[in-house]
Amino acid sequence: MANDKKLVEAITSMEEDFAQWYTDVVKKAELIDYTSVKGCMVIKPAGYAIWENIQNELDRRFKETGVQNVYLPMFIPESLLQKEKDHVEGFAPEVAWVTHGGLEPLQERLCVRPTSETLFCDFYANDVHSYRDLPKVYNQWCSVVRWEKTTRPFLRSREFLWQEGHTAHATAEEAEERTIQMLNVYAGFCEEVLAIPVIKGRKTDKEKFAGAEATYTIESLMHDGKALQSGTSHNFGDGFAKAFGIQYADKDNKLKYVHQTSWGMTTRMIGAIIMVHGDNSGLVLPPRIAPVQVVVIPIQQKKEGVLEKANEVADALSAAGIRTRLDDSDKSPGWKFSEQEMRGFPLRVELGPKDIAAGQAVLVRRDTREKMTVQIEELAVKTEELLETIQREMLERARAHRDAHTYTAKNLEEMKDIAENKPGFIKAMWCGCQECEEAMKEEVGVTSRCIPFEQEEIEDTCVYCGKPAKKMVYWGKAY
Amino acid sequence: MANDKKLVEAITSMEEDFAQWYTDVVKKAELIDYTSVKGCMVIKPAGYAIWENIQNELDRRFKETGVQNVYLPMFIPESLLQKEKDHVEGFAPEVAWVTHGGLEPLQERLCVRPTSETLFCDFYANDVHSYRDLPKVYNQWCSVVRWEKTTRPFLRSREFLWQEGHTAHATAEEAEERTIQMLNVYAGFCEEVLAIPVIKGRKTDKEKFAGAEATYTIESLMHDGKALQSGTSHNFGDGFAKAFGIQYADKDNKLKYVHQTSWGMTTRMIGAIIMVHGDNSGLVLPPRIAPVQVVVIPIQQKKEGVLEKANEVADALSAAGIRTRLDDSDKSPGWKFSEQEMRGFPLRVELGPKDIAAGQAVLVRRDTREKMTVQIEELAVKTEELLETIQREMLERARAHRDAHTYTAKNLEEMKDIAENKPGFIKAMWCGCQECEEAMKEEVGVTSRCIPFEQEEIEDTCVYCGKPAKKMVYWGKAY
Repeated sequence: MANDKKLVEAITSMEEDFAQWYTDVVKKAELIDYTSVKGCMVIKPAGYAIWENIQNELDRRFKETGVQNVYLPMFIPESLLQKEKDHVEGFAPEVAWVTHGGLEPLQERLCVRPTSETLFCDFYANDVHSYRDLPKVYNQWCSVVRWEKTTRPFLRSREFLWQEGHTAHATAEEAEERTIQMLNVYAGFCEEVLAIPVIKGRKTDKEKFAGAEATYTIESLMHDGKALQSGTSHNFGDGFAKAFGIQYADKDNKLKYVHQTSWGMTTRMIGAIIMVHGDNSGLVLPPRIAPVQVVVIPIQQKKEGVLEKANEVADALSAAGIRTRLDDSDKSPGWKFSEQEMRGFPLRVELGPKDIAAGQAVLVRRDTREKMTVQIEELAVKTEELLETIQREMLERARAHRDAHTYTAKNLEEMKDIAENKPGFIKAMWCGCQECEEAMKEEVGVTSRCIPFEQEEIEDTCVYCGKPAKKMVYWGKAY
Repeated sequence: MANDKKLVEAITSMEEDFAQWYTDVVKKAELIDYTSVKGCMVIKPAGYAIWENIQNELDRRFKETGVQNVYLPMFIPESLLQKEKDHVEGFAPEVAWVTHGGLEPLQERLCVRPTSETLFCDFYANDVHSYRDLPKVYNQWCSVVRWEKTTRPFLRSREFLWQEGHTAHATAEEAEERTIQMLNVYAGFCEEVLAIPVIKGRKTDKEKFAGAEATYTIESLMHDGKALQSGTSHNFGDGFAKAFGIQYADKDNKLKYVHQTSWGMTTRMIGAIIMVHGDNSGLVLPPRIAPVQVVVIPIQQKKEGVLEKANEVADALSAAGIRTRLDDSDKSPGWKFSEQEMRGFPLRVELGPKDIAAGQAVLVRRDTREKMTVQIEELAVKTEELLETIQREMLERARAHRDAHTYTAKNLEEMKDIAENKPGFIKAMWCGCQECEEAMKEEVGVTSRCIPFEQEEIEDTCVYCGKPAKKMVYWGKAY
């Protein structure tokens, strides 16, 4: 199927050029393709299968917390977008505008949704009347458009896929609870499924979502020491409700405004998987998200009985609930090994005539390249165990890498030194004022990633201005 | 949750005003809501849950035939849309145009995809090189936009959800085989899952898809005797391949054009479910597609032990793999019955103190309203059986209705009489010329639905012009 030539050309090493390594992996693992549509990408089968697994797992977790799925229009009339002042200021500069429908100009232009707060508000204003209509805990899976100037596959593209949850609650407490609950769903998903450890915290006012009272975030660290904002959850208070007139009659018969939240996770998580776990042979997928968990590769497959046994082994693995692929194409075993490595499937089974004669097979881990010989009748049990081990160890390694690249700065000099020489998170104190935050960006080249829930007192003064510190902040360079 | 008031107001009867009945059901079963975006709708949780079940079931069937999912951009540059002449003529009049990105006008305007043949062709032109790259059997789940002037929920809206499969093959035979294979997947899905019988056939040249060599269709009959095109599968031959230059090196080392197909099914199937199975109490859902298959409704739920038993019963049904909801809200049982009926859930279990004392429960079918008393310990088994029975009988009733509303016309006079007085399909002979087809539309008010695979010879002359007949055609009024 895949053109063999693509694999011979080695990919750029990540030490040599991390950005080129990333692009090479994305292309050679056949996750995406570029298109004639500037800034947009094709997500190919190998990439989309990862997204389907992300969707299934997240959707299941959402539904366990009472989320219901809906679908709202992809267009937002300009007048609707403008109803909440901060929100329109944040998004208007980067939306795509539809001005003609069929052969005629539209009376009012429509933007292609960059996010759907305004549409959900418009919907809730019609749909919410009484306390009995609350809470609304809705989510949609869709694509959104933001007219970015520079784009990178998965990380930043003009159109991307995501889910956006939008909720409405009777009280401020309930809204805050939901905001944190969904942040925890994201954090659990990243750590348990993607094997990506995250820092949970709150965004500073400068970094929060346009129109939000508070934005919470999970931040992860990529292999090159840059941070990636991996999921956000916003508490809007009653700001949107007042702008859109979303009121309900409470039990005391008084009209009250609802309190709202929104939260989203996107296809950029595929970029995170690549940059947290990948190596110089390509992608490395955590077993729980891998579309294929084990590839069975016959050796000397033309010899009698080899393909037959390989089929038998693959069937037994599938029957045990393991996502299995048999590669019986006419490529050489060496090719097949490289391909399994490039595509990041967690395990491969090598099976040749000698193995079969001995009732054995060779199991090879993608992450550590460890090889082991296993009795064929024990293969399914051993594979299941190994997939669990790989999943656990990938998280441990990612956590160890992150911890080894998390630094502490007590003063500006230390801060500048770390920012220049040691890529990673920098923990440092902050006085809480936006001027210091802006100066840090300008002079040190880092942005505030979050005010973590788990605070430490590193110093009692702000790392920039020396005034009394209010909070410890994670700083870093970010995607 | 739902505002009780909504249910008291009776819905319009279908005999009085079918269109109003449809709108009432769609609104009161809370499937959709209208929005501030003209011609677009909100698909609410009850509606979207049906779509999720459609997606899951269709997607499973697709994958069994080797389909892989991908995602392509939602925008099509104007120059790309124009590459295939017939295709652009068919779609250009009804697309939405993006002319500005951010604050700047675009150099080339982009249309929001009405369908993605051109994008897939552009992609395949880059991705297909050798016979080893074929076949490509890709599908995407997405929304598309067609700037319709008059719209109706699910049946015709400016934006709708669908899947669109796009394939590329080495030979014409293989493309034709895939076209028919997918038509059969659609037909099997409609009959086995939606309990909607369909007529399989080919569209006339006048009715085929813009750019296709042949369009195949499944046509179903709604309760009011109007037809609904329920799924289409197109064979493009090598027309698009030539326009886009999609060539592969064959085993003989010669460059050849690929042969392509596309096929789609949309959210309009939710409209079909409503109009085939619904009645004057609301929606009636086939068990296999129903988000909730059985509702447990406690009677006198404040009496000791009632809610406890109801919970126990609901848990036992869920444990048996039946999609179960317990309605323990503070509404009256009568309300809950009406609500279950309006929302079309196939079965309800009524459970009061007397039933519990007798170790019994009352099971009520939504479709026939048949009531039966069942021992509680037999409830799960009986429910499973009944769901199968309901599914089978709903298909049988729909087939009987369709057959009773399928007429045969030997000449124009009969044709006009049936078209005027007997809503339904009309089988009649056709000479094959487009003039007769157009005249039938003009003078009789019917369009050709399809040239069915199962042919009959009703007469040997065309029902309109009296010249020798070539084919028997299903005619009708259509949504």
